Amino acid sequence: MSEVARIGVLGRGTVGGAFAELVAARADEVAGIAARRPEIAGVLSRSDGDFAEILERSEIVVELIGGIDPARDYVTRALRAGRHVVTANKQLVAQHGEELFEAAREAGVQLRFEAAVAGVVPVVRVIQESLAATEITKVFGIVNGTTNFILTEMAQTGASYEDVLARAQELGYAEADPTEDVGGADAAAKMAILARLAFHTPVELADVSYEGITEIQPDDLAYAKELGLSLKLLGVAERIEDGISVRVFPCFLYRGHPLAPVEGPFNAVMVEAPTITEITMSGPGAGGVETATAVLGDVVSILAGEAPVHQVRRQLAAVADVASSFYLHLEVADRPGVLAQIADVLGRNEISVQSVVQRGLGDDARLVMVLHECPERSFYAALEQIAKLDFLRAAPRAIRVIEEEFL
Amino acid sequence: MSEVARIGVLGRGTVGGAFAELVAARADEVAGIAARRPEIAGVLSRSDGDFAEILERSEIVVELIGGIDPARDYVTRALRAGRHVVTANKQLVAQHGEELFEAAREAGVQLRFEAAVAGVVPVVRVIQESLAATEITKVFGIVNGTTNFILTEMAQTGASYEDVLARAQELGYAEADPTEDVGGADAAAKMAILARLAFHTPVELADVSYEGITEIQPDDLAYAKELGLSLKLLGVAERIEDGISVRVFPCFLYRGHPLAPVEGPFNAVMVEAPTITEITMSGPGAGGVETATAVLGDVVSILAGEAPVHQVRRQLAAVADVASSFYLHLEVADRPGVLAQIADVLGRNEISVQSVVQRGLGDDARLVMVLHECPERSFYAALEQIAKLDFLRAAPRAIRVIEEEFL
Repeated sequence: MSEVARIGVLGRGTVGGAFAELVAARADEVAGIAARRPEIAGVLSRSDGDFAEILERSEIVVELIGGIDPARDYVTRALRAGRHVVTANKQLVAQHGEELFEAAREAGVQLRFEAAVAGVVPVVRVIQESLAATEITKVFGIVNGTTNFILTEMAQTGASYEDVLARAQELGYAEADPTEDVGGADAAAKMAILARLAFHTPVELADVSYEGITEIQPDDLAYAKELGLSLKLLGVAERIEDGISVRVFPCFLYRGHPLAPVEGPFNAVMVEAPTITEITMSGPGAGGVETATAVLGDVVSILAGEAPVHQVRRQLAAVADVASSFYLHLEVADRPGVLAQIADVLGRNEISVQSVVQRGLGDDARLVMVLHECPERSFYAALEQIAKLDFLRAAPRAIRVIEEEFL
Repeated sequence: MSEVARIGVLGRGTVGGAFAELVAARADEVAGIAARRPEIAGVLSRSDGDFAEILERSEIVVELIGGIDPARDYVTRALRAGRHVVTANKQLVAQHGEELFEAAREAGVQLRFEAAVAGVVPVVRVIQESLAATEITKVFGIVNGTTNFILTEMAQTGASYEDVLARAQELGYAEADPTEDVGGADAAAKMAILARLAFHTPVELADVSYEGITEIQPDDLAYAKELGLSLKLLGVAERIEDGISVRVFPCFLYRGHPLAPVEGPFNAVMVEAPTITEITMSGPGAGGVETATAVLGDVVSILAGEAPVHQVRRQLAAVADVASSFYLHLEVADRPGVLAQIADVLGRNEISVQSVVQRGLGDDARLVMVLHECPERSFYAALEQIAKLDFLRAAPRAIRVIEEEFL
């Protein structure tokens, strides 16, 4: 049996609950990676549990309370007591990062906070580790899911900011008091953290200028659409000569910009450096289980230590018979009944047609169709039958299609 | 002075050269992170250097030879001799991963290979570390830059596969013998690696089915455009019931799919799991300095050990006066000379106009313009002057625009 790794959890909210469930569900996986089985040693809530007791019983403390007090005190005490700490608390790291990093260094323990910025999108790890020795010139992106959801809805429905905010609150994408999100302060804290990591310089929250989305009018979005623009709340941290600029502001992007298609509650961050051109990362920026997944990733890194793990843990068979959707290109004689015969072959193989483009070319015609998903076995059986039809002028050509349409 | 970390480099090609330069340029940065200053202990080329001697002098061996022989022998000997190894060699890891991971485990050293898949896009690190304890269900994406460049060019120009391949060879995006790239074998090796890491199961290269892009015809791309589709060479690794399927094939994607806008030599990988929905990562998939950056990231991780580093290394000032492009929304009285007066104010502040939408609304008119980039100071000065014009019917509204048009 593998040794147990005891984890103290501070906070019993959505993320805290999701984290406890995730630890229980994935304990075997973690044990396989880290040779240590994680176990929740205690959970502190406002009304229940004693911090000192939980600290005593834990070797890793996971802080999911949010806000500065009492999170700052708990995290500091945990670090000083030689416990590794994982936190999802952006305000804490943005405002008191220096003193916490210092406490971690002095105690020789780790302080990890992937979940504090862009949820499960691994931007902290990538900037701190993959690009540690890279001269980063700019980090920017969409780091607040609430505002991105609101702007996406406003653009799609034409509704007012107030109406969409109310809808976001109903759906749980905005809090009852949305000020920190919609005013830009949340994104500002996250950008302060990213700027610090990217540029290895202290960044005070007071140095980050920010604007929110509360003044955006529906007709701005309507005009912008005519100009081919879409609106995002952007965080931008960049090197400018011997200084840095860190800002948060609503901003229009042209179609084709890598951030333009990022919609709804998703986050996305781009990192630029001369040696890498740019890296773009996107994914869900919030949500209980997503945030808990980011927290667990940090816990696993602490437990696994320095070496990434390559241990084979199971033996999965290779599956050959998968389902696909296909594009089918046929050169046929231009005469009546051709489409009917092809449709008949497809029907007998239980394949349905999504769309067809037909075009005559003198004697020949081109018949191009996209078929709905079916077992590849069925498709290739149909293809063999079609290839034998006497009106075919050339071998049929088939290319797979991913049918799923993203909004 | 910080201690020196000696790195032996195997291979003197494009990546080897870029890596040696990068180590020299970034040695101080690495020393700041890892408290060890990297130094090239020796470079082995086909005609020069002795492996045993370089091994003796190094604590980390970086393998950039490519291919199986003699890379496999060198890497195995380095691991057995207790040296950490970083490699960019996808065929080596795909075909002999098991034995190399085993050798690393036995010797208690690290074997890292971020650069082997999708270049500097940190997909290996994210799957192995961030998502180590996550139940990944699917990993898929564009993992070969040569074919993506060719398909992008074919779609944009209508040229044939053969013509575009010749152009790609001229530009250095395709090798003199492009078989491994265009036939799909390169992508297959990368997908075998990703499948292994994502699903913790051995994956034989023989289990990966693959097709290339050599049969794609220009008119397939033309018809597809009519259907709203774009073509990519996709690698797909997925869990299917109790097994896995790993495949590489050309595939059409609908507009709006996160991979559809990935063009030219870029790579992009998506990871799906129930707890994270999906994460998308994209960036340059190849290139000497990009690959060398990924290799250096692995070297830094080895040197820095388990703890990510938060040390402040410099003090950069916050810069306030940045340049931006703006969208400007004005409600004005609908009378002659209005646009001229506004244009005059902008001109006196040295701001030029990129586009204008004007629309009458009875007495009032809406004037919406996008301005070219200028110092924000100039813009706000102009805005103040515009706000005072007597034909303004409401306060002007301004929103920033990122002017850069991609593709």
